[in-house]
Amino acid sequence: MAKGADLTLINGQFCKDVSVGNRGLAYGDGLFETILVRDFRPLWLDDHLARLVSGAKQLNIPCDVAELKRDCARLLGDFSEPAAALKIVITRGASMRGYTPHAARPERIVSIAAYTQNRQLWDDGIAVAVCQTQLSSQPKLAGIKHLNRLEQVLAAEEIHRRGFHEGLMTERGLVVEGSRSNLFMVVGGILFTPSLSRCGVDGIMRQRVLKHANALGLETRIKEFGVSALCSAEEAFVCNSVFGIWPISKVECVHMQIGPISRLLQREFDTYFYL
Amino acid sequence: MAKGADLTLINGQFCKDVSVGNRGLAYGDGLFETILVRDFRPLWLDDHLARLVSGAKQLNIPCDVAELKRDCARLLGDFSEPAAALKIVITRGASMRGYTPHAARPERIVSIAAYTQNRQLWDDGIAVAVCQTQLSSQPKLAGIKHLNRLEQVLAAEEIHRRGFHEGLMTERGLVVEGSRSNLFMVVGGILFTPSLSRCGVDGIMRQRVLKHANALGLETRIKEFGVSALCSAEEAFVCNSVFGIWPISKVECVHMQIGPISRLLQREFDTYFYL
Repeated sequence: MAKGADLTLINGQFCKDVSVGNRGLAYGDGLFETILVRDFRPLWLDDHLARLVSGAKQLNIPCDVAELKRDCARLLGDFSEPAAALKIVITRGASMRGYTPHAARPERIVSIAAYTQNRQLWDDGIAVAVCQTQLSSQPKLAGIKHLNRLEQVLAAEEIHRRGFHEGLMTERGLVVEGSRSNLFMVVGGILFTPSLSRCGVDGIMRQRVLKHANALGLETRIKEFGVSALCSAEEAFVCNSVFGIWPISKVECVHMQIGPISRLLQREFDTYFYL
Repeated sequence: MAKGADLTLINGQFCKDVSVGNRGLAYGDGLFETILVRDFRPLWLDDHLARLVSGAKQLNIPCDVAELKRDCARLLGDFSEPAAALKIVITRGASMRGYTPHAARPERIVSIAAYTQNRQLWDDGIAVAVCQTQLSSQPKLAGIKHLNRLEQVLAAEEIHRRGFHEGLMTERGLVVEGSRSNLFMVVGGILFTPSLSRCGVDGIMRQRVLKHANALGLETRIKEFGVSALCSAEEAFVCNSVFGIWPISKVECVHMQIGPISRLLQREFDTYFYL
């Protein structure tokens, strides 16, 4: 296998194609994880696998963590680039025509590709749009990282077209998350992040930020808020487990300060992402 | 190419695999159609293609109808079974990592498989469940037949597990459609079907039923209603362009009469589906 080129294992075999009968393609019937690799090591792999297992339980797709770990280790051993992104997809596999998920044999797809971090946005902060595409409320799918991502695709198109770095997605007027990140704001020294009980992805980095903030003695609250509350916050940032923490310097045309709590939390995670 | 076996064309070439980088698999970033074939002829192909084009416009995926028609004609010519189901999938194709839909080359997947109609449910009617899985409201995706179908998969699992033929899906307490069909009820001799402005699929058979009902002098109304209104209706049925019209004889444990308007409309479509 050529070193450096993207590698993919499907059910443990080197391969880059899936059957047209795959329910991941037919219905988005599956889940995924994207994991940062630095110095040949996947960041927080166990947390990602735990979220995958929890999503698989919710969708009732069997998921063998030991096999996934073996696939990841094999790809990491064969890949020559120290900085990469590892992607895990599990689908319910192929089945007969129709939505009913009977007689399907689950399929796992693990791939790795070179990936370079861009530190500039971490340092300078980002401008975020407020997306016209809103999230829909679906408690049965909230939190998990499933393959039904058309809302995010439509939002990403808006963000790209309007020249923003990231976009915020709302549901019934309340901000839930970024198109590919979770959101935090600071008001009165307290760290707020929206609830994910109706929609949104329960990000691994969000979990880590909450844990570290608590360990640092910061008060944290899960609470819904709107765009205007965000704009008048002392500081705000978005985060995910690939880029880390990006402070928000602008929401649409409203400027925001990059504040001390964002910087404090960035220092907590600096070594994971950049040093 | 073996006659009788399922056939698939991907971008006009016989093939049964798609790349793992396909955005249909990664994000459900695409659309599909399922078309009944009888006596080697696809039923209402132009209507299906028109809906596909309209969905493609909404998702901003280029879609070449002439190519799709050529693919369909080729499969129909090569397939030995007179009764079949033709499936068209279009996806945005493969792209770089991430939700942003840039630099993707759209992909079309057309396949055919033998399919046998079951007339019994047309004659005897069906029992429908009320699914616990509800539809979420997303006006940007309402009406089109996109590949984000996890809600339908969860609903189908419920329906299968509980031993029903079909299940009704609600949104905020109002019935919208079946898991794989549209819904009609008759009250005071008027034919009602729910609005699809917030969610649901604008079915080809639903369009046909409305057209034929009007031509027959029946009054039709697009109007939202709940399960209790449905249960006390004079008659009700579900429909799609593969099975036609299934009268509802039971909603959960509530019995319903199969009425004259359902039978009248079935007679209108009998030749398309069964004779």
